[in-house]
Amino acid sequence: MNRKMIFYTVGHIALAEAALLLLPALVALIYLEKSGFSFLISAALALCLGMLLVIFAKPDDRLIYAKEGFAIVAYAWLLLSAIGAVPFVIGGAIPSYIDAFFETVSGLTTTGASILTDVEALDKCMLFWRSFTHWIGGMGILVLVTAVVPNIADRSLNILKAEMPGPTVGKLVPRSRDTAKILYIIYFGMTAILTLLLIAGGMPIFDSIVHAFGTAGTGGFGIKADSIASYSPYLQWVITVFMFLFAINFNLYYLLLLRKFRAVFKSDELWFFTALVLFCIGAITFNILPMYGTVSEAVRTSAFQVCSIVSTTGYATADFNLWPGLSKALLLLLMFVGGCAGSTGGGLKAARVVILIKSIGKELKRLLHPRSVKTVMSEGKRLDDETLNGVTSYFAVYTICIMAVFVLLSFEPFDFETNFTASVACFNNIGPGLAGVGPASSFAEYSGISKIILSFAMLLGRLEVFPLLLGLNPLIWKKQK
Amino acid sequence: MNRKMIFYTVGHIALAEAALLLLPALVALIYLEKSGFSFLISAALALCLGMLLVIFAKPDDRLIYAKEGFAIVAYAWLLLSAIGAVPFVIGGAIPSYIDAFFETVSGLTTTGASILTDVEALDKCMLFWRSFTHWIGGMGILVLVTAVVPNIADRSLNILKAEMPGPTVGKLVPRSRDTAKILYIIYFGMTAILTLLLIAGGMPIFDSIVHAFGTAGTGGFGIKADSIASYSPYLQWVITVFMFLFAINFNLYYLLLLRKFRAVFKSDELWFFTALVLFCIGAITFNILPMYGTVSEAVRTSAFQVCSIVSTTGYATADFNLWPGLSKALLLLLMFVGGCAGSTGGGLKAARVVILIKSIGKELKRLLHPRSVKTVMSEGKRLDDETLNGVTSYFAVYTICIMAVFVLLSFEPFDFETNFTASVACFNNIGPGLAGVGPASSFAEYSGISKIILSFAMLLGRLEVFPLLLGLNPLIWKKQK
Repeated sequence: MNRKMIFYTVGHIALAEAALLLLPALVALIYLEKSGFSFLISAALALCLGMLLVIFAKPDDRLIYAKEGFAIVAYAWLLLSAIGAVPFVIGGAIPSYIDAFFETVSGLTTTGASILTDVEALDKCMLFWRSFTHWIGGMGILVLVTAVVPNIADRSLNILKAEMPGPTVGKLVPRSRDTAKILYIIYFGMTAILTLLLIAGGMPIFDSIVHAFGTAGTGGFGIKADSIASYSPYLQWVITVFMFLFAINFNLYYLLLLRKFRAVFKSDELWFFTALVLFCIGAITFNILPMYGTVSEAVRTSAFQVCSIVSTTGYATADFNLWPGLSKALLLLLMFVGGCAGSTGGGLKAARVVILIKSIGKELKRLLHPRSVKTVMSEGKRLDDETLNGVTSYFAVYTICIMAVFVLLSFEPFDFETNFTASVACFNNIGPGLAGVGPASSFAEYSGISKIILSFAMLLGRLEVFPLLLGLNPLIWKKQK
Repeated sequence: MNRKMIFYTVGHIALAEAALLLLPALVALIYLEKSGFSFLISAALALCLGMLLVIFAKPDDRLIYAKEGFAIVAYAWLLLSAIGAVPFVIGGAIPSYIDAFFETVSGLTTTGASILTDVEALDKCMLFWRSFTHWIGGMGILVLVTAVVPNIADRSLNILKAEMPGPTVGKLVPRSRDTAKILYIIYFGMTAILTLLLIAGGMPIFDSIVHAFGTAGTGGFGIKADSIASYSPYLQWVITVFMFLFAINFNLYYLLLLRKFRAVFKSDELWFFTALVLFCIGAITFNILPMYGTVSEAVRTSAFQVCSIVSTTGYATADFNLWPGLSKALLLLLMFVGGCAGSTGGGLKAARVVILIKSIGKELKRLLHPRSVKTVMSEGKRLDDETLNGVTSYFAVYTICIMAVFVLLSFEPFDFETNFTASVACFNNIGPGLAGVGPASSFAEYSGISKIILSFAMLLGRLEVFPLLLGLNPLIWKKQK
């Protein structure tokens, strides 16, 4: 176990956060908000901590293996959340530290579940930081640090693997650092385009930036009580399309840049995901048509909510809690599926659903013809047993985690639908659930202990369980042999 | 495809049902109930149909493969349910055929979900038939026919495999016919012991027999409005213990008879199942203690409900719908787990849960030490990839089925908890769910189309999806090559 390398890398994360905390301070300066000082204090705290770690834990060698990767990611995300919550408390926006921690974890994991009951009362710098955490957490802070800091670790792919969601982590180019750079360039570029499109549609610049953060990270923190409902149909459509785009595997965008159109066209996951989204938009439009005046309004409202839920963003233009049962059931189904692998979206991931469905097909064939050998094809390649087992065991642990969170939440005096969808919405990093945690409500009513459980559920979901469980397991710190 | 063999075997099933229908007719004779004639008419119908099939589809060879096994099981269960529903309609107990079909499927699949709102108004012969279907369906009608009819098919293991639940089907002895006989002897013996224990406790003979049927098949149809609540604590404890016993793998009882105690002791599934049951009994006792006067009453009520749900029986001595959230959440968790493989219980099966948990452990080890080879041990043997893939793909199809049934039910005007637990309770063959389908309610309010969907869900759950899907698939009827 290369302990020094773990502290050293986590130290770099603290330094990165110190730098990132200066942005909301700048926003405070522009709007002359006194609460901006809380970001300077937090940045100083992160800077000191980071310097200490980087200086005193300077590693002798930079070689890391899988377990160091898990530990780095687990501790980095905990530290990031712990520090990120400080300005909310110091600035007075969220007096309770547990509440602030919940809100920060929700931001970084791009969940978007909030304990705030009156978001419009917050200072602009606080709103900016809330949404900025979505953008940081969306593509991943360690991906960012790997892209920016030269040669942070030998074999830094072990870090990327632990932080990036999906059944397989594809290196776009041989060096992981270049992969990280390419991903962030695409991410930054798409966010910039979205911001400009929102500004062009008449959204104020501040609103455009924070909503672009929330959309790009598939987070969902809004700055208005009614989320996106009061913006124009054009702005709603722009956000709808970009929620969909940010839920697609970023590898495909890289392939597009390389003009490898045929490879993009062959992606099973893309086809499945697109078909699922279109089907649900159609079915829900039909189902909610009587509630809305015109077809165009029903289509827009349906498309927005479907893209928001399937991408695990969590913005809303309607209180879908009031929709008929079928629409709610379809949205719940989409909560489980989530975005594509290698996107900023959460959930089980469309790629895993495709592989699970294919493994069912394989089993059906095996039952009919027991002696023939069957292979599962995925994305044009033969799926190896390791990936297949990884997907199926992830699905098992995914289900167990959701059930466990649900059982732990059942101490709360809320109804079945509230607790169940709260577990699903937090673990899948969506944000709003149904009933008591629907889009028109908040998580404020939950007790402190439940908020900690839900924070942990959000982290488990964002990091896909295994890295967090392994990274925090004290057993891996023991020296081998 | 050996078509004749399929018709021929299904014909034998119809003949068997004709014989079984004489039993409730006998009950009607004892209690002088006119509705008993409906069983004679139904028996005649089954006899004619069976004779036609057996005479005209006499096969040239008796060799069957996996796909014939699936088709036989699928059509046999549909025919059995279709005929079994007839006496309810003719006798006037359940005027609507769809309702009667639902009730019969619920009986045969040992679900115990009922559309009857006043069960005490039924004739004794009807009550007997309702509970007798549990006993028939529990161990399986094809297992019975295989045990009784000499050499019904070469390779009749392909039939047993399709009808018996669990990840692997162990032949107790080399010949499948002998395996079927041994299973039925154990089943019959345990049912007889239970009946005697109930009679000894002062339960009327008729009540003892029907409750023994319901317990042995892990079905759950009662004959009183309050299920088992009005019987004495002794009787409740007897049923509790036997619900647990019938949810255990019957192979273990055979091993006990052979005095192979060590093999029984080594069963992972048995340990896991027992630990889970004891844990839940303890937790729920603690949770419901304030609602009940004494510890002994709380323990008894908790143990009864836990064993009833985990064995997927569905009897009740309390309306657990009124229990606190934690108890309801734990019961919901148990609904998913179900009984042991090779028992009469439904659900996912404890054996599969154990294998899924082990596959998670394997994945954790693989992530930490990517290059080492990992094997999963199960019941003292190395688990082969085929079984492991079978379990994981079953888990995927299991989840998809429950979600699909839930989405299809969402057209109904009921709340989330009602529809969700109705799907779970029917697919896992439990019976009562929560809220609108709780133990104090019935499925009567659902529409005809939803009742058909739920009937299909019960069959899918009882036959573990694949046999029904493959057996009813018209593609397998095509000649190969």
